[in-house]
Amino acid sequence: MKEVRIEEGGHLGPIDSSLTPRYAGPATFARLPRLDQVSHADVAVVGIPFDSGVSYRPGARFGANHVRESSRLLRPYNPAQDYSPFAAAQVADAGDMSVNPFNINEALEAIEDNALGLTEGGTSLLTLGGDHTVALPLLRAAKQRAGEPLAFLHFDAHLDTWDTYFGAEYTHGTPFRRAVEEGLLDTDAISHVGTRGPLYGKKDLEDDRRFGFGIVTSSDVYYQGVKEIVAKLLDRIGDRPLYVSVDIDVLDPAHAPGTGTPEAGGITSRELLEIIRGLRGTNLVGADVVEVAPAYDHAEMTGVAASHVAYDLVTLLAERASNDDDAAAAPERR
Amino acid sequence: MKEVRIEEGGHLGPIDSSLTPRYAGPATFARLPRLDQVSHADVAVVGIPFDSGVSYRPGARFGANHVRESSRLLRPYNPAQDYSPFAAAQVADAGDMSVNPFNINEALEAIEDNALGLTEGGTSLLTLGGDHTVALPLLRAAKQRAGEPLAFLHFDAHLDTWDTYFGAEYTHGTPFRRAVEEGLLDTDAISHVGTRGPLYGKKDLEDDRRFGFGIVTSSDVYYQGVKEIVAKLLDRIGDRPLYVSVDIDVLDPAHAPGTGTPEAGGITSRELLEIIRGLRGTNLVGADVVEVAPAYDHAEMTGVAASHVAYDLVTLLAERASNDDDAAAAPERR
Amino acid sequence: MKEVRIEEGGHLGPIDSSLTPRYAGPATFARLPRLDQVSHADVAVVGIPFDSGVSYRPGARFGANHVRESSRLLRPYNPAQDYSPFAAAQVADAGDMSVNPFNINEALEAIEDNALGLTEGGTSLLTLGGDHTVALPLLRAAKQRAGEPLAFLHFDAHLDTWDTYFGAEYTHGTPFRRAVEEGLLDTDAISHVGTRGPLYGKKDLEDDRRFGFGIVTSSDVYYQGVKEIVAKLLDRIGDRPLYVSVDIDVLDPAHAPGTGTPEAGGITSRELLEIIRGLRGTNLVGADVVEVAPAYDHAEMTGVAASHVAYDLVTLLAERASNDDDAAAAPERR
Amino acid sequence: MKEVRIEEGGHLGPIDSSLTPRYAGPATFARLPRLDQVSHADVAVVGIPFDSGVSYRPGARFGANHVRESSRLLRPYNPAQDYSPFAAAQVADAGDMSVNPFNINEALEAIEDNALGLTEGGTSLLTLGGDHTVALPLLRAAKQRAGEPLAFLHFDAHLDTWDTYFGAEYTHGTPFRRAVEEGLLDTDAISHVGTRGPLYGKKDLEDDRRFGFGIVTSSDVYYQGVKEIVAKLLDRIGDRPLYVSVDIDVLDPAHAPGTGTPEAGGITSRELLEIIRGLRGTNLVGADVVEVAPAYDHAEMTGVAASHVAYDLVTLLAERASNDDDAAAAPERR
Amino acid sequence: MKEVRIEEGGHLGPIDSSLTPRYAGPATFARLPRLDQVSHADVAVVGIPFDSGVSYRPGARFGANHVRESSRLLRPYNPAQDYSPFAAAQVADAGDMSVNPFNINEALEAIEDNALGLTEGGTSLLTLGGDHTVALPLLRAAKQRAGEPLAFLHFDAHLDTWDTYFGAEYTHGTPFRRAVEEGLLDTDAISHVGTRGPLYGKKDLEDDRRFGFGIVTSSDVYYQGVKEIVAKLLDRIGDRPLYVSVDIDVLDPAHAPGTGTPEAGGITSRELLEIIRGLRGTNLVGADVVEVAPAYDHAEMTGVAASHVAYDLVTLLAERASNDDDAAAAPERR
Amino acid sequence: MKEVRIEEGGHLGPIDSSLTPRYAGPATFARLPRLDQVSHADVAVVGIPFDSGVSYRPGARFGANHVRESSRLLRPYNPAQDYSPFAAAQVADAGDMSVNPFNINEALEAIEDNALGLTEGGTSLLTLGGDHTVALPLLRAAKQRAGEPLAFLHFDAHLDTWDTYFGAEYTHGTPFRRAVEEGLLDTDAISHVGTRGPLYGKKDLEDDRRFGFGIVTSSDVYYQGVKEIVAKLLDRIGDRPLYVSVDIDVLDPAHAPGTGTPEAGGITSRELLEIIRGLRGTNLVGADVVEVAPAYDHAEMTGVAASHVAYDLVTLLAERASNDDDAAAAPERR
Repeated sequence: MKEVRIEEGGHLGPIDSSLTPRYAGPATFARLPRLDQVSHADVAVVGIPFDSGVSYRPGARFGANHVRESSRLLRPYNPAQDYSPFAAAQVADAGDMSVNPFNINEALEAIEDNALGLTEGGTSLLTLGGDHTVALPLLRAAKQRAGEPLAFLHFDAHLDTWDTYFGAEYTHGTPFRRAVEEGLLDTDAISHVGTRGPLYGKKDLEDDRRFGFGIVTSSDVYYQGVKEIVAKLLDRIGDRPLYVSVDIDVLDPAHAPGTGTPEAGGITSRELLEIIRGLRGTNLVGADVVEVAPAYDHAEMTGVAASHVAYDLVTLLAERASNDDDAAAAPERR
Repeated sequence: MKEVRIEEGGHLGPIDSSLTPRYAGPATFARLPRLDQVSHADVAVVGIPFDSGVSYRPGARFGANHVRESSRLLRPYNPAQDYSPFAAAQVADAGDMSVNPFNINEALEAIEDNALGLTEGGTSLLTLGGDHTVALPLLRAAKQRAGEPLAFLHFDAHLDTWDTYFGAEYTHGTPFRRAVEEGLLDTDAISHVGTRGPLYGKKDLEDDRRFGFGIVTSSDVYYQGVKEIVAKLLDRIGDRPLYVSVDIDVLDPAHAPGTGTPEAGGITSRELLEIIRGLRGTNLVGADVVEVAPAYDHAEMTGVAASHVAYDLVTLLAERASNDDDAAAAPERR
Repeated sequence: MKEVRIEEGGHLGPIDSSLTPRYAGPATFARLPRLDQVSHADVAVVGIPFDSGVSYRPGARFGANHVRESSRLLRPYNPAQDYSPFAAAQVADAGDMSVNPFNINEALEAIEDNALGLTEGGTSLLTLGGDHTVALPLLRAAKQRAGEPLAFLHFDAHLDTWDTYFGAEYTHGTPFRRAVEEGLLDTDAISHVGTRGPLYGKKDLEDDRRFGFGIVTSSDVYYQGVKEIVAKLLDRIGDRPLYVSVDIDVLDPAHAPGTGTPEAGGITSRELLEIIRGLRGTNLVGADVVEVAPAYDHAEMTGVAASHVAYDLVTLLAERASNDDDAAAAPERR
Repeated sequence: MKEVRIEEGGHLGPIDSSLTPRYAGPATFARLPRLDQVSHADVAVVGIPFDSGVSYRPGARFGANHVRESSRLLRPYNPAQDYSPFAAAQVADAGDMSVNPFNINEALEAIEDNALGLTEGGTSLLTLGGDHTVALPLLRAAKQRAGEPLAFLHFDAHLDTWDTYFGAEYTHGTPFRRAVEEGLLDTDAISHVGTRGPLYGKKDLEDDRRFGFGIVTSSDVYYQGVKEIVAKLLDRIGDRPLYVSVDIDVLDPAHAPGTGTPEAGGITSRELLEIIRGLRGTNLVGADVVEVAPAYDHAEMTGVAASHVAYDLVTLLAERASNDDDAAAAPERR
Repeated sequence: MKEVRIEEGGHLGPIDSSLTPRYAGPATFARLPRLDQVSHADVAVVGIPFDSGVSYRPGARFGANHVRESSRLLRPYNPAQDYSPFAAAQVADAGDMSVNPFNINEALEAIEDNALGLTEGGTSLLTLGGDHTVALPLLRAAKQRAGEPLAFLHFDAHLDTWDTYFGAEYTHGTPFRRAVEEGLLDTDAISHVGTRGPLYGKKDLEDDRRFGFGIVTSSDVYYQGVKEIVAKLLDRIGDRPLYVSVDIDVLDPAHAPGTGTPEAGGITSRELLEIIRGLRGTNLVGADVVEVAPAYDHAEMTGVAASHVAYDLVTLLAERASNDDDAAAAPERR
Repeated sequence: MKEVRIEEGGHLGPIDSSLTPRYAGPATFARLPRLDQVSHADVAVVGIPFDSGVSYRPGARFGANHVRESSRLLRPYNPAQDYSPFAAAQVADAGDMSVNPFNINEALEAIEDNALGLTEGGTSLLTLGGDHTVALPLLRAAKQRAGEPLAFLHFDAHLDTWDTYFGAEYTHGTPFRRAVEEGLLDTDAISHVGTRGPLYGKKDLEDDRRFGFGIVTSSDVYYQGVKEIVAKLLDRIGDRPLYVSVDIDVLDPAHAPGTGTPEAGGITSRELLEIIRGLRGTNLVGADVVEVAPAYDHAEMTGVAASHVAYDLVTLLAERASNDDDAAAAPERR
């Protein structure tokens, strides 16, 4: 019953699967320790069970735990990035935020407060949604921590820069219009990737462009290929502090049926993972993976895709944390 | 492409299935005419796609259309009640109310207004939920139309008389506490049927009893049988104006997996239908069937159960409308 | 790879599960030998993959193999009847009839011919459907073999005595009106069991009664209990040659979601099995289990229910065959 | 309860989703008006619930309504084609044809008659199947309206040029052999796209070639890419009146599990959509999307893919209608 | 992120759902504290993810966490027993045992050792399986703690007293033959409840009877009713130390599709819960709920049934612990 | 009921689908004859229902029959290879091996013995798993038949060259380390294709490389394309006797959800089929398709993919058998 953990690089790692099978034990992300089991986390994975901002199929409130459950097969070495994130940095699972489902404004405040609390000691966050509404308070907190507007990469079938819906300012279709309005983003370095599907009108695109967004559609990924796309994105991002938000509906419904507003013609999980891996070396300060709605998933295929995306993002965050440590010697963090 | 309808008793009935197969054509409830296709409806079936009051699995926003889709096999003669509801009265499908998903208070007002509008000409309502929050504004409207507090029969695994949840007064766990507080119900004639499952504390039961509710648990139905239960309920109801609210989770999850807060040990669909049929002769003024969450249904088993419950309730409403017509000659209604 | 079989009473039995696990090997019914592996069968289980007579959800064409697959757990001793059917008689799986899906009349002829061919040497048939249309040619063949009209027990949510549908005389809603018209049934001894749900009109019941059918509704089973129901049925059947037809939709959708025209409020699988076991001692000459539509099944629950019903029917057929053998010494059959 | 609609370009558009959420209200295609709500439709979307021609998994009779339900998220501006189809032309949902499931010949006649009736005033049709049998009467009607044999683009895993099956001439495997035999197609301009999977024999290919068909296999799409494929197809089609028929099984089962005869190794929904968008500027006169079998779908992934394909085809039809109007001023149509 | 817990009776209770919604946070059983969060547990819920003893559908290795996930709706007051188990005793979740999937003998030893370790301080165990093989080492440990052979109540569709299977002595079909052979059970007080379905031969029953087992079949429950059954069971059990083992397949597949060897004709979840509640006042020393195979579950209906069964068993264990405490004052435990 | 078979090239082929519909009759692979129906098979398809070596989701014991069921649509001419495998060689279905689920060592011996028995007369094997553990005894038998170490192509998300797991040497994660240790493989010609996903450590890759394996990752397939990959593989293989092992999890979960250890970012079924077709002309001596776990499949999409992979492998085996026959005249085989 004692959970023996792999230890490497002075960090507490996942439960040792040679002693406890992967299907056993509680499902923290990648079977990592809970935040209360480590003295400090360089990277924390946190869930936000909140879906009161959805406009179509609800259920993303169950998303974070579904992704955790689907992350049981994740192992500690990432060959695609030739990196061992859990050895390079202390990664831990911070559990779920407690968020009010009946009051969106109160929920947004709680999320922002929680995010600021978690990042106080220099911890960076990988958040598991929840619906896309949660990205706004996460960006507010990330921008405050960074001390400057953020470069922003947004993987999604949709723009999420609509204005209001039923009079509501804060829904899962509006966070990035709000983020621009609030000055959270560096509008020279913001891009959508994977968009497709019908819009309300041409004005949607015009507004979006006016806010500064570049668009890489799903068809662009098909015609240009991952390498060309990555080069363009990196060029835009530079060395700015970068936040990455992944709405799992960026994937084709074949790869991610378990989501709320599916659109045909999406990118594959292989393309998504390769683009994210292409971000190696950027100054990634935070990330989220949202809109996993388990009631529509099958055999955890959406959950597995999301957990792999999260794993590659954690790898990037761990590497940056490790580099920071090396650069600054940063002894106070241990 | 012309939809030919069965006509009987001077009323416009369902699409003729000998000309248009049951799997074809739009899914109004029981393939009945839309409200805009008839001059007056004695009974209207209306949907409320709203689930912002749920505390666990969401998705009842898709419930009304799911029940309609599952009602394609309903035929016009009800042998269990030896009655032809669509011949006895004009029954029509009033479509869905347009309800704001992001503002519960605004939603409740809209529902009440809509219900009052629909019942203006003496039409009685059978409502398809939506989550149980919607029962409160429906009771407000029904009480206003009745001009007196209502007898109330509540089929549910839960009491739904909790106070607040996350500070919210109006959720799917609280409508009937609010209804009692607002004086909508005749507390000498209110009962829960089918309750079971754990509670927060003994106080839940004490509060509930204090409000006046009688409780027939699922186990009571097992030990006493339907006939004895029905006799007791009828005794309590008398000839008061009666409102019946059916949370589909009153059924065991075996019969109704497609719901948000399932509890084991429930009653069967046969028991539920027989109890409802036992209400023949009461003064039924309105009814709802709520909490059908299609994402958790399988092969429409929940939808079919809900549509049959709705059909027997419509039969009761149609009979009362027909009796009223006979009694009052009520020519203004035609 | 050699399939070793249990041998008892001089008969070739199921594959020995202590050598070949139940999940391995081909799925004949109850892992019994194929008809071509035995010299004579007292009872043959035969599939009819045909569903061109359905009016709603199709898919029963896949029913027979689904029931076979779901019969892998059936073992050779039936404790509910205290009988070992595969030791008492030679039971074998005759495979599927090859039936034209595009021409109902040709299909009916082929089924009748096949049934007559299979029963030539005194073999009795347990048929796995296919939709209920197939019961008509099976009754034709059974009546011819019996040399007299048959007592008939019909388990179904529906009457199946409608007249025509879209001008078609032979569909899954009409076989028993046709059977009465053709003089196949002894109208003093025919009953529906488990009916429920709405009808087209009161005339449906009147016609049905005129044909001679007695009706035991699903609610009757609830109120009277199995013992009382069985006594009444036996009284009606007497020692006439009996044919039993089980539409799996006689079960509540909770027990049998995998069917084409589900109706709420049905009987349980325990009730159905107990009624069938109550037929012990009748002169059962043939039986079918139809309307299993696997695309709507879940975890084989419908298939398992159907396979258990078939198993208890096979037990009855085997006992009758064994008694015949004993009575007549019937040496030519071995 | 009043459905407010977006109006643009003098046309009645979809229900306004800022007032009625997308999950509410009846499911016409893209929430467009019914045909009886507009005075004239330039483009009509019509369903054909018919699957009596299938040779394997049935269920496409439920396809049209499933695609409509899955089209609730379609919005009025198509960024991939930079076009607003519902503003450019009046598009409406014509509901379902009433078709006899028990008589294929009668069904084919009814479909042809209905199609001719619907197109009388210059309306072009986008049909939602139904199985592929329905394409034959649709081609007959389209050829009659065009006054000349049609160019034909056929997206499918299969050739559908087999001869007879169980003696039946008209099944879902034979429509295009019949179409060639009847002179409906311009055999200089007919192509299959996306074919793959085993055939009965080499003769299948030889026959097909003899009829004039060009073949672009699924592997060709992989090796050559969409742009090269589109160029070749356009070259073949020229300015002939073009009919496009999309069997959803052209997609890989990963993208479209909900179909009757799935074959591995298919094209992606992104490839399919891009090829269809490449047809911009052709003289498209009619189109269908068939073989969606909802019982095998999951989370509407097949339905969403089909609805997006239909949306891009409607965009092409609307543009052609708009151009015609401009060219001819065509005042009589308004 | 701090989990606030309900405290009552000096015990640490479940997470407060008025602050953290039930769908949020980690899934311990009933959201109770982990064993490492309390100083002593009167009752511990422990999982055994092991299914290497199954003979048909595997997957029960995922059962314990599935039941935990399905227990999120359990609240602290049990009205059916009028008892607050988490206030009366300290109940905690002990997590999962780490068990070798590739070596059954080693697994059985580890389970016994773990069970002995957990019960060292007087803690009683409610175990979540895993397949039924795990009951043998649990009985070994329980017998050792009790110091005498145990009364035993076995809810199951099957006898589980077979001898060997493929030469293996320890599988999910044999634990109770082994238990009798090892003298773990008081053979005057052992009963199966809910058995049904075919057996290998009459000898299965004869062996079983010889071991001392009484049998209450599923049909007995139907004919005699719960009250009569409970009286007989209590009579047999007396005040002996009692172990209860619940194979979830005792339920009909309608109530518990998510299991490995389903048999039609089972009891309902209401019957099962009522029988268990009837055990109030017995000397229950341990219990398990096994054979939940989530891959075959739907909408957690099996998980919810199992979690309610576990909850009523925990209530019985908590009451006994509380009585013990009162009797002995047992101050050292607090 | 007589199964008429297509005969061509002197061989007994599949059941004639123009007489018996594809959904009818028993499911041998591609509806081919059973081994006991032919005098000699050039190629035999054999199932191994065994999954006691899995480390995560079990259920592959049901894999072989699921693939057979999903192979009903396979037709006798393979246009992708322009070849009629069943005419070129006698292909038959050898049924399932009977394998002990409770003793891995005994199971491995039985599999090897069975494989040697089946291949005695020069038959080559296409095996349907079962989990990947079965590949080791199959390689042992194939190496013995070939008389020399084998070239080996391994399609898989994983390396399967781990050492031990819970002390077990023989599991589904270790077969190819064992195979190298035992000298079964020609380490100049062994490659993994399609690998991806996290590993335990960099040492996994180093060990693997040390054993001689080349790796073509899923990303390599994306970046280089099938043609380049095939050329490299062929170059490595040369004319050595080649064994191909396909773990279906090489496909992305979108294409193959029905498997035990899914990893995102996989190859498509089109890529897999094209690579296999690229092996035309190699000296293929045996092959397997493993790890199909039907409980996690949907609408047979995994089964269909696996059956198509198996079909293309059978085509290669049949061609080699046919060439051998031609070369050697080999009359003794007929």
